[in-house]
Amino acid sequence: MAAKVGVIMGSTSDWETMKHTVETLDELGVPNEAKVISAHRTPDRMFSYAEEAKARGIEVIIAGAGGAAHLPGMVAAKTPLPVIGVPVQSKALNGLDSLLSIVQMPAGVPVATVAIGRAGAVNAALLAAKQIGVHDDSVHQALEERRMLKEKEVQEQEDLT
Amino acid sequence: MAAKVGVIMGSTSDWETMKHTVETLDELGVPNEAKVISAHRTPDRMFSYAEEAKARGIEVIIAGAGGAAHLPGMVAAKTPLPVIGVPVQSKALNGLDSLLSIVQMPAGVPVATVAIGRAGAVNAALLAAKQIGVHDDSVHQALEERRMLKEKEVQEQEDLT
Amino acid sequence: MAAKVGVIMGSTSDWETMKHTVETLDELGVPNEAKVISAHRTPDRMFSYAEEAKARGIEVIIAGAGGAAHLPGMVAAKTPLPVIGVPVQSKALNGLDSLLSIVQMPAGVPVATVAIGRAGAVNAALLAAKQIGVHDDSVHQALEERRMLKEKEVQEQEDLT
Amino acid sequence: MAAKVGVIMGSTSDWETMKHTVETLDELGVPNEAKVISAHRTPDRMFSYAEEAKARGIEVIIAGAGGAAHLPGMVAAKTPLPVIGVPVQSKALNGLDSLLSIVQMPAGVPVATVAIGRAGAVNAALLAAKQIGVHDDSVHQALEERRMLKEKEVQEQEDLT
Amino acid sequence: MAAKVGVIMGSTSDWETMKHTVETLDELGVPNEAKVISAHRTPDRMFSYAEEAKARGIEVIIAGAGGAAHLPGMVAAKTPLPVIGVPVQSKALNGLDSLLSIVQMPAGVPVATVAIGRAGAVNAALLAAKQIGVHDDSVHQALEERRMLKEKEVQEQEDLT
Amino acid sequence: MAAKVGVIMGSTSDWETMKHTVETLDELGVPNEAKVISAHRTPDRMFSYAEEAKARGIEVIIAGAGGAAHLPGMVAAKTPLPVIGVPVQSKALNGLDSLLSIVQMPAGVPVATVAIGRAGAVNAALLAAKQIGVHDDSVHQALEERRMLKEKEVQEQEDLT
Amino acid sequence: MAAKVGVIMGSTSDWETMKHTVETLDELGVPNEAKVISAHRTPDRMFSYAEEAKARGIEVIIAGAGGAAHLPGMVAAKTPLPVIGVPVQSKALNGLDSLLSIVQMPAGVPVATVAIGRAGAVNAALLAAKQIGVHDDSVHQALEERRMLKEKEVQEQEDLT
Amino acid sequence: MAAKVGVIMGSTSDWETMKHTVETLDELGVPNEAKVISAHRTPDRMFSYAEEAKARGIEVIIAGAGGAAHLPGMVAAKTPLPVIGVPVQSKALNGLDSLLSIVQMPAGVPVATVAIGRAGAVNAALLAAKQIGVHDDSVHQALEERRMLKEKEVQEQEDLT
Repeated sequence: MAAKVGVIMGSTSDWETMKHTVETLDELGVPNEAKVISAHRTPDRMFSYAEEAKARGIEVIIAGAGGAAHLPGMVAAKTPLPVIGVPVQSKALNGLDSLLSIVQMPAGVPVATVAIGRAGAVNAALLAAKQIGVHDDSVHQALEERRMLKEKEVQEQEDLT
Repeated sequence: MAAKVGVIMGSTSDWETMKHTVETLDELGVPNEAKVISAHRTPDRMFSYAEEAKARGIEVIIAGAGGAAHLPGMVAAKTPLPVIGVPVQSKALNGLDSLLSIVQMPAGVPVATVAIGRAGAVNAALLAAKQIGVHDDSVHQALEERRMLKEKEVQEQEDLT
Repeated sequence: MAAKVGVIMGSTSDWETMKHTVETLDELGVPNEAKVISAHRTPDRMFSYAEEAKARGIEVIIAGAGGAAHLPGMVAAKTPLPVIGVPVQSKALNGLDSLLSIVQMPAGVPVATVAIGRAGAVNAALLAAKQIGVHDDSVHQALEERRMLKEKEVQEQEDLT
Repeated sequence: MAAKVGVIMGSTSDWETMKHTVETLDELGVPNEAKVISAHRTPDRMFSYAEEAKARGIEVIIAGAGGAAHLPGMVAAKTPLPVIGVPVQSKALNGLDSLLSIVQMPAGVPVATVAIGRAGAVNAALLAAKQIGVHDDSVHQALEERRMLKEKEVQEQEDLT
Repeated sequence: MAAKVGVIMGSTSDWETMKHTVETLDELGVPNEAKVISAHRTPDRMFSYAEEAKARGIEVIIAGAGGAAHLPGMVAAKTPLPVIGVPVQSKALNGLDSLLSIVQMPAGVPVATVAIGRAGAVNAALLAAKQIGVHDDSVHQALEERRMLKEKEVQEQEDLT
Repeated sequence: MAAKVGVIMGSTSDWETMKHTVETLDELGVPNEAKVISAHRTPDRMFSYAEEAKARGIEVIIAGAGGAAHLPGMVAAKTPLPVIGVPVQSKALNGLDSLLSIVQMPAGVPVATVAIGRAGAVNAALLAAKQIGVHDDSVHQALEERRMLKEKEVQEQEDLT
Repeated sequence: MAAKVGVIMGSTSDWETMKHTVETLDELGVPNEAKVISAHRTPDRMFSYAEEAKARGIEVIIAGAGGAAHLPGMVAAKTPLPVIGVPVQSKALNGLDSLLSIVQMPAGVPVATVAIGRAGAVNAALLAAKQIGVHDDSVHQALEERRMLKEKEVQEQEDLT
Repeated sequence: MAAKVGVIMGSTSDWETMKHTVETLDELGVPNEAKVISAHRTPDRMFSYAEEAKARGIEVIIAGAGGAAHLPGMVAAKTPLPVIGVPVQSKALNGLDSLLSIVQMPAGVPVATVAIGRAGAVNAALLAAKQIGVHDDSVHQALEERRMLKEKEVQEQEDLT
C-alpha cells in the first residue's frame, strides 16, 4: 500500500529513536516509508524528496534530527505538506540544541515539534495519525482503541500500596 | 460559517500573541473561533470544550499558554483532534518554561508545538491550514498564494548594497 | 487508618522516586495512600480524585510527575486542599522541564514545589507532615525526633581528618 | 489580631514583589506581619525570628529572596513551621538563580517553592491560606469565594471574536 | 570590483546586525556584496546562490540568521567555500537558539561560528579578511593597522583614576 | 599612597560596573589603582601588568570582564597574587557567558569569582579588603564598621506593615 | 600545628570532592582541618564555627556544598574571614544550582567562588594558599614550586605527533 | 613537509577529542603538527607559539580547550592567522562553558568556533582545509572527494524499511 507518512532522518544513528515512530505507525495501520535523507550531506535529495512527496501520495512528513537540526525546517520550506519535527537527543547538550533548532522557526514556515527522544518519536506518529484520522475512520478507530488501552493499563496499576 | 479551528488561550493577556493566529486564519479564509479557557481557573469548561469540539465540527484546536502551560497538553488528553500548542513568552523566563511545559509531553498524548511568541502564533495558524488544506483545495490554494507572496517579498528586497 | 496524605504520580516509572515520599510518611506515622493517576492518560480519574479527596479525609495531596508535568497543577485546579509537586528527573533535560512545568504556576492556583528527584520526594513528605503537625502533636513530635536524629548524625561524623 | 502568617524578605527592594503576598492575605482575612530580615546582613535576627515564630502564634512563614536566596532555606532549618519560598526576579539571571537556590533543598529541610515573581508572591499567600483553611472555616470560605470569582471572570470574557 | 565576500541574511530585520559586517569589510577594503536570502522563504535561491558563489569569485560567505537559524549550515552544505555564521540575537531566547542552531553542525559540514549579535558581525568580517589576507597583502596590512589602532585606543584610555 | 589593589577591566564600557569596586575600596580606605587593560587587544600589556604587580606592592588584583571573559584567568596564570574575577553583565546572555568563562578555571589556576554585575563589583572590593584586613587592622576595622552599618540599616527598616 | 584553613562541607558525600582541597593544602604544607558542618541540619553549629574561627587562628574558610548550597554564604555572613565556596556537582542539574547558589551573593557578603567539582576543590586550596602566601614565604615558595612543576609537565608532553 | 595547520590543546586529556582533527587533516593530506600548549599553565609558551606560527609557515591554528576555555581567544589575540576554536566537552556543564568561553569573543578578535566535541574536532579540520583549498587545488580536490563519499554513503543506506 502506498505510504501516507514519510519518516525521514538525518543519519542511521537517528534510527534508534525514529524506529519508535515507524513501530507506532505500523501498530495503527498507517502505511509509511522510512528513509535516511540528510539536510547537510544530501541537500539536493532532501529538496527533491520534499518537492515530490505530495504527488506520491504522502500526507504528512515526519523528520527526526539532532544537534543543529535543519532537516525538519528545510523540508517544511519545500513542501505544502504538514511537517512534524522530532528532536533527537544529542550527546553534549541532551537535545536542547535539537529542540531549539527545530521549534524556533520563523513566521511563515511551521514545523509541528514534539518532545526530545523516544516520547517525541511515538507522539510524532500519533500526531500524523490524528491528522489522517480526521478523514479516515479506520485510523481514527485505531487511535481510540490505543488510547483506551493505555487508560486501562493505568487504571489496572492504580493502587501502589 | 461553522468554525473549523478552535483558538483557545489561558488568559486575556495571551490575546496580544494569539491574535496573530486568528488574523492569519482569517487571511487564509479558515473559519475559526477564539475563546479564553483556562486550564487552572476553568478546568471543567476546558474539559467540556475539548470533549465537544469534534462533534461541533472543529478539526484542529490551537491552544496558547505561558509559564507552567498546561492548557495544550490537557486539551490533547481529552480530544481525538490534533492539538497545536503556542508557548506564550513569559515574564521571568522568556517563554522557556512555556515551551518545555508544552513540548515535553509523554508518549501517548502529542501536542504539535511551535515557536515561542508571535512567530509561533502565526505558524500555528499555517499548520492548522496545512492540515485542512490536505482535503480542502481553497485553503491549499490560499496557502500557496501566501507562500509565493512571501517569497516575492524577499526577492524584491534582495539587494542591500 | 484513613489516609491523610494522598500520594499520586503519573506513571509506575515515577515510583522509583515517589517511594521515598511514602517511606518518609510511614516513618513519621502519617497515614497515606499511593496511586498511579495520569493527567494525560486518565484525565477524568484525575479530576474525580481531586474533587473527592477532601471529603475522603485527605488533608494534603503530593503529586509527582516528569517532563511536561501537568499532574500537580491540574489537581491543584480541582481541589481546595494544598498540593505539593515533586519534579521527577527526566531523561533528556534532567528534570529542568519537570521543575518549570510544576513551579511556574499562574497566580491563583499554587503548587508547593520541592527539589528534583529523591530529595524532593523526601521533602514533600516532611512538608505534608509539617502542615499536619501544626494541629497533630504526635506528628509534630515525630518530626522533631527525626530532625534531632539527623542533627546528631552530622555531629557524630563532624571530624574528617 | 495576632499574625498567623509571617512574611519576611531579604531587602526592601523585595517589597515590590512581596506586597502581593500581603495584599492577598489581607483580601482573605488572614492576619499577617511583614518584615525585612536578611539572611546575610542580619543572620542572628533571622535565627531568633525563626526560633520564636511558633511560640508567637505564627503558623506559616513566607520568605521572599533573590539571587543566592538563602533566607527561605535557612529559616526552614530553624523552625518546625512550614516555610514557603518566593523566588524574587533577579537582575542578571531573571530569577533562575533565586529559584534554584530556594527549591533545590537537600532531603530533610523542605521549602515549599512557588513561581518566580508576582505570581509566586500571590500563590504563597494562597498556599498559606489553604493550609490554615484546613482547620479554619472562614479562611476556607474566603478561598472558595476568591476561586469562584476568578472562574467567573474568565467565563465572562470567554468569547474574543 | 568583483565581490570576494558574500554577506547574506535571512531577513531585512537582520540588517541592523549584519550592516556591521559590511561596514568592517568596507573599512578593510574587502570588496563585498550584501543580500537578503532566506533559507525558509527562498530555499531554491539559497541553493543557487551557494552553488554559483565560487565561480563568481566569492572566496568566503558570511551568513547571518536568528532563531532556528538554518541559513549558514544549509549554504555550507551546498558550497565548497568556507562559511561563517553570525547568530542574530532573537527576541525570546536572546540568540541562544540562533547560536546552537548554527554552531552544533554535524561532522562533515562546518560553519565557522562567531559571537551573538554586533560583536559577531564585526568578527565575521575580520575572520573573512584574515583568510583573504593569507594571500592578499593589502588586506593583511589593513588588518594589522586596524589591530594596532585598537591597541593604541586601549592604551590611551588606560588610566581611569 | 601606593596601591594595594589593582582594579583592571577589559574595556571602558566595564567602568559602569567596576566603578563600584573602586568606590567600595575608597570607602574602606584601601589604596587602589584602576586601569583598562584588555586581554585581547593589549595582551602583552596584560602580561607585563600581571608580572610586575607584586613587585609594585599590589596584594590583590581584581579583574572585570564580560562575554568570553579571559582577563581574570589569564592574569591569574601570570601572577602569584590572588586574582578576583567580576563577571560583567553581557548584552545577549546576561552575564552567564562572563560567569562561566571566569569561574570554570582548570585545576592549578584559581580565580576567586563573585556575582554578575554591580553586586559582584562591590563584593570583589570587600573580598580584597577582607584579605588585606587579616594583617591590617585599620582595614579590618573599616570592614566591621561597614558591616554593622548595613546590619543597622536593615534593622531600622524591619517593619513594613 | 594549629589549622590556618578550615575546610567544611555540608555532608559526608561532599568529601569525594573536598578531599582534593585537603590534599592540595597538605601538599603545600598549609595546616588545615576538615569538618562536616551542615547549614540546614546543624545551623547553630555552623554559626558558632563561623563566629569562633578567627579567634582560633583560622585565616580562610573553604566551604563546599551542592544543590541549594547555603553553607558558604551563611558562614560568610557570620565571620570577618574570607570565605571560599566550592560548588559540588549535584545529581540533577550537574552543579549549576550549586554554582548559582554560591556565587550570586548580594552586595555586602562576598564568597570567593571557584569551579564546580574537583577542579574547584583544588583551586580553593590554591586560592587560600595564595592569600596566606602574601605574608608567609614558605607557602609562597611551595606555590611557586608547584606552578613550575605543572608548567614543566605540560612542556614535557608538548609534542603529540 | 612543513606543517600548514597547527593543532594545539590545553591538556593531554583533550587529545581524545582533538585526535579527530589530526586524523581528518591527515586524510585530506594537509600537513599539520599537534602540540599541548596551555593558556594557564604555559602562558609564555602560548604567546611565543602564536607569535611565531605565521613565520613558520602555519596558515591556520586550531585550538581545542574545555571549561573556561581561553586558549583559542588568547592565541587569536597574538597572531594575524585565522584561529579555529574547538569546545571540548567538560564534565559538569557538558561543554556549554567551553562553547561560550570560545565563541563570545568581543569585536576585534575573532575565533571561528565549531561544535562541542568530536563533530567540532572533525569540522575544524575541514574548515582549515576549506580555507587552504581556496588556493591549493589538491586539498580542494580531497575535500570534494570526501564530500562525495559521504553523500554516497547516505544514499546507499537511504531505505530503512
